[in-house]
Amino acid sequence: MSDLLVTGGQVLRPDMTVERADVLVDQDAGTIEAVGDPGGGDDELDAAGGLVIPGLVNTHTHVAMTLLRGLADDKPLDAWLREDIWPVEAELTPEDIRVGAELGLIEMIKSGTTALSDMYFAVEEIAQAVEQAGVRARLGYTAVTVGKDDEGARADLERSLEVAQEFDGAADGRIRTTFQPHSLTTVGEQFLREFVPQANEAGLATHLHANETPDEVGPIVEEHGVRPLAYAEDLGLLAGETYVAHGVHVDDSEIELLVETDTGVAHCPASNMKLASGMAPVQDMLDAGVTVGIGTDGAASNNDLDMFDEMRDAAMLGKLAAEDASAVDAPTVVEMATANGADLLGFDSGRIEPGANADLAVLNLDVPHLTPAHDLVSHLAYAARGSDVRHTVADGQVLMRDREVTVFDEDRVREAAVDHADALVERAM
Amino acid sequence: MSDLLVTGGQVLRPDMTVERADVLVDQDAGTIEAVGDPGGGDDELDAAGGLVIPGLVNTHTHVAMTLLRGLADDKPLDAWLREDIWPVEAELTPEDIRVGAELGLIEMIKSGTTALSDMYFAVEEIAQAVEQAGVRARLGYTAVTVGKDDEGARADLERSLEVAQEFDGAADGRIRTTFQPHSLTTVGEQFLREFVPQANEAGLATHLHANETPDEVGPIVEEHGVRPLAYAEDLGLLAGETYVAHGVHVDDSEIELLVETDTGVAHCPASNMKLASGMAPVQDMLDAGVTVGIGTDGAASNNDLDMFDEMRDAAMLGKLAAEDASAVDAPTVVEMATANGADLLGFDSGRIEPGANADLAVLNLDVPHLTPAHDLVSHLAYAARGSDVRHTVADGQVLMRDREVTVFDEDRVREAAVDHADALVERAM
Repeated sequence: MSDLLVTGGQVLRPDMTVERADVLVDQDAGTIEAVGDPGGGDDELDAAGGLVIPGLVNTHTHVAMTLLRGLADDKPLDAWLREDIWPVEAELTPEDIRVGAELGLIEMIKSGTTALSDMYFAVEEIAQAVEQAGVRARLGYTAVTVGKDDEGARADLERSLEVAQEFDGAADGRIRTTFQPHSLTTVGEQFLREFVPQANEAGLATHLHANETPDEVGPIVEEHGVRPLAYAEDLGLLAGETYVAHGVHVDDSEIELLVETDTGVAHCPASNMKLASGMAPVQDMLDAGVTVGIGTDGAASNNDLDMFDEMRDAAMLGKLAAEDASAVDAPTVVEMATANGADLLGFDSGRIEPGANADLAVLNLDVPHLTPAHDLVSHLAYAARGSDVRHTVADGQVLMRDREVTVFDEDRVREAAVDHADALVERAM
Repeated sequence: MSDLLVTGGQVLRPDMTVERADVLVDQDAGTIEAVGDPGGGDDELDAAGGLVIPGLVNTHTHVAMTLLRGLADDKPLDAWLREDIWPVEAELTPEDIRVGAELGLIEMIKSGTTALSDMYFAVEEIAQAVEQAGVRARLGYTAVTVGKDDEGARADLERSLEVAQEFDGAADGRIRTTFQPHSLTTVGEQFLREFVPQANEAGLATHLHANETPDEVGPIVEEHGVRPLAYAEDLGLLAGETYVAHGVHVDDSEIELLVETDTGVAHCPASNMKLASGMAPVQDMLDAGVTVGIGTDGAASNNDLDMFDEMRDAAMLGKLAAEDASAVDAPTVVEMATANGADLLGFDSGRIEPGANADLAVLNLDVPHLTPAHDLVSHLAYAARGSDVRHTVADGQVLMRDREVTVFDEDRVREAAVDHADALVERAM
C-alpha cells in the first residue's frame, strides 16, 4: 500500500471554509484517507504556504480543439461553425485529435483541472490521451445528422451508442461515457425518436447542446409548438442521467423541467460571451435547484481551458444576468467548479473529505495578485489563475509536481501540436 | 550613452501585424531607436521564441486598493462603497497606501503594464512608489464633497488642484497628473461650478467617474433635466483634456458629446460586471470615434490588476453588449489596451516604433495555452495571461527580467502588505 501526504497547506473544505490541515491520500485506492493531522505517507507533496483545493471539473469541452485555438475569432456561432470550424474539422486525422487532446490535457493539468466532460469524435484517441493523462473524463462520440442521408445519419447515432458502451469504465474506471446527440437542431427528430429510447434502455447517460442561442429556440418553438427542453423531454432525452451544455436561453418553465427531471447544466460563460450567445440565468437555475457545473467549451471559442478564468467569468456574467452584484457569489462559483461539476459527471470528486476520490490541486499563494489573503475563496473566484497551481493530483497520482507535468513530455507535445496544426491549416485552406 | 537590444523575438507593430524583429532601445532617452535588425546594444534582453508588445496601459485604477483585495465581494457599488470600502479607507495610513501602491505596481509590472491612471489620496506616497517602480502614471487627488461641510468640501477640491500642480512632471516626467472630482453625484454642483474653471484655467487634465451605474444617471436627469455628460459639459468638465472612467450608461447624445469634446473613456469591464453596473456600448463608442482605453479599476472590484484579463473581458463584454460576436474584436481590444490607452493618458507610448517611449513587455509563447500560434493577436486578447510576461521595460529601463522584478524587493513588499492589511482590518472592524 502506498500513501501520499499533502503537507503544510491550508485546505478548502466542502462547506467552503478553509483550515490548516494535511491530506493523506491512499494512492492504491485513489481516494482521500484523512484530512487533519494524520501523519504517515510514503511520499510527500509540499503544500507549505499553499491552498489545497478539489481538482476543478470542466463539465463541457472539446479537448482536441486546442489545435484550432485562435484560428477563427470574432464570429457568431452559426457562421463560425459552418464557415470555419466544420471545414477544418473535416480534415482532422486521428493523429491530430490525439495530439490536440494531449495538448489540452496538459493545459488542464497545469491549471488544476482533474476531470472533464468531452464531446467529439475519434474517441479512441481521446480515451488513450485521457488514460495517459491520469484524469477522469466523461467521453462520447457526437452525432450530427444535418447534411447526411438516412444511412449516414443512422450510422452516426449508432456510433454514438457503440462508443458510449465500448469505453464506459475504461482506464480503471476513470473514463465514463455519454450518448451524444449534438443538439436539438443538428439531429433530426426521426433519428432522435429512434435512438434516444435505445440509449435510455442501455442505461447510458446523455450529453447534448441545448438552448445555446436564440437560433436553437425559435425554430423549435415554430416547428414543435413547445420550448426546446419540453421537446427534449418529449423525446425522452431528459429521462435518464442527462446534462445539457449551455442552457443560455431557458425560460422559467424549462428551469422547472430541469429540476423535475434532475437534468444538469454545463454553463459555459466565456463561450457564451465570445460568441455573443447571451447570458444564462444561472442564479435563477441555482435557486430553483438545478445542478449547474462550469465548462470552458473548446479552445476555439474561449480560447483557453483554464477553469480559473471560467469561475471568474461565471461569477461576473451571473451578476450581470441577474442585475445583482450579490448573485453567483464566490463560494457558489467555486462549488460549481468543484462539487457541482463532479455531481454532474457522476464522479465522487470535487470535495476534500475522507473516502472521496483523491483529485486535488495545490495553489501557490505567495504571489502579489493573491496578496493579502482576506478571503481565499474570493481569491479562487476572482484573482487566481491557472498558473498559480503548483501540484495536480488525480486518482491519487501526482500528474504535476512543482509545475512539471509528470504524465506527458510537455515540450514534445507542444512541438507536435504546432506541426499538426500547421499541416492541418495547409490541408484545409 | 547606453543601449538595450531586445533580441530574437517577434514584434507586435502599431498596425497589429507581427513580424520577426529586434528592438533597439536608447536607455538614456528612454525611447525606441530602431526596430528591425539594428544590431548594437550594450545590454541584451533575450526575447527568443517570445513576442514583444507595447507595455499595457491601465487607464483607470486605484492602485493602493490592493490592500483591500477580497475584503468585500458580491455587493452592488453603492452599498459596497458605503458599508465596506469607505469605512476601511478612512483608516488607511500613508504607510498603508505606500505599501498597497508598491504591491499593486509589482503586480502590474509582473503582468506587463507600464503606465497607469490612478485616482486616490495620499498622492505623495503613490508618487514615490511610482518613481521607484519606473512606470509612467497620471496621478491625482480625488475630491469628494458628500458628507462634508462647505469648508471641508472646498479644502478637498483645493487639494485636488494643488496636487495636480505639484506632482506634474515628477519622476523625470514619468508622472503627469489630473484634477479629480470623484463623480458627478459625489461632488456638489456649487463646488464643481467654483473649481472646474480653475482647473481649466490652470491647463490641468481632468479625470472623473461618470455614468457608471443607473444611480449616476437618473438623479442627474431628475435634478438638472439633462443627461450626465451634458451636465458635465455645462460645468466645463469636458472643456479640457478629460477622460471619464466607466461610461457604462451613455446614450447616443452623450457619445456624440464625447466625440465633439474629444473626451476619452476608460472602460472597466471586470468592475462593471462584478458590481453588476452594466454593459458599456464600447463598439458604438469606437464607431463614433471616441478614444476608449481599458482599466482594471481597483483590486477590490476586480480582483486583480492584470490587463490581459481585462482585454479578454473587454472583448467578451463588448460582444455581449453589441449582441454581435464580431464586435470589439481581438486587434481592437489590443489597441485599446496599448495605443488608445497611451493616447488617453497623453504618453507617447503604446506603439513599438522608432521615437516612441521604450515601454514594452516580452511574452513567453512556449506554453501550452498559447499553442499553436495561428494568430498571436488573438492570443493576446483571449488566451494570454499576466504570468506569460517574461520581461517588462518602461522608459528604457528593465523593471522585470525573467520574472524577477528589479525595482522592488517583491518578498519584502508582499510581507509588508500582509502586515499592513491585517492591522488595517483590525483597526476598521
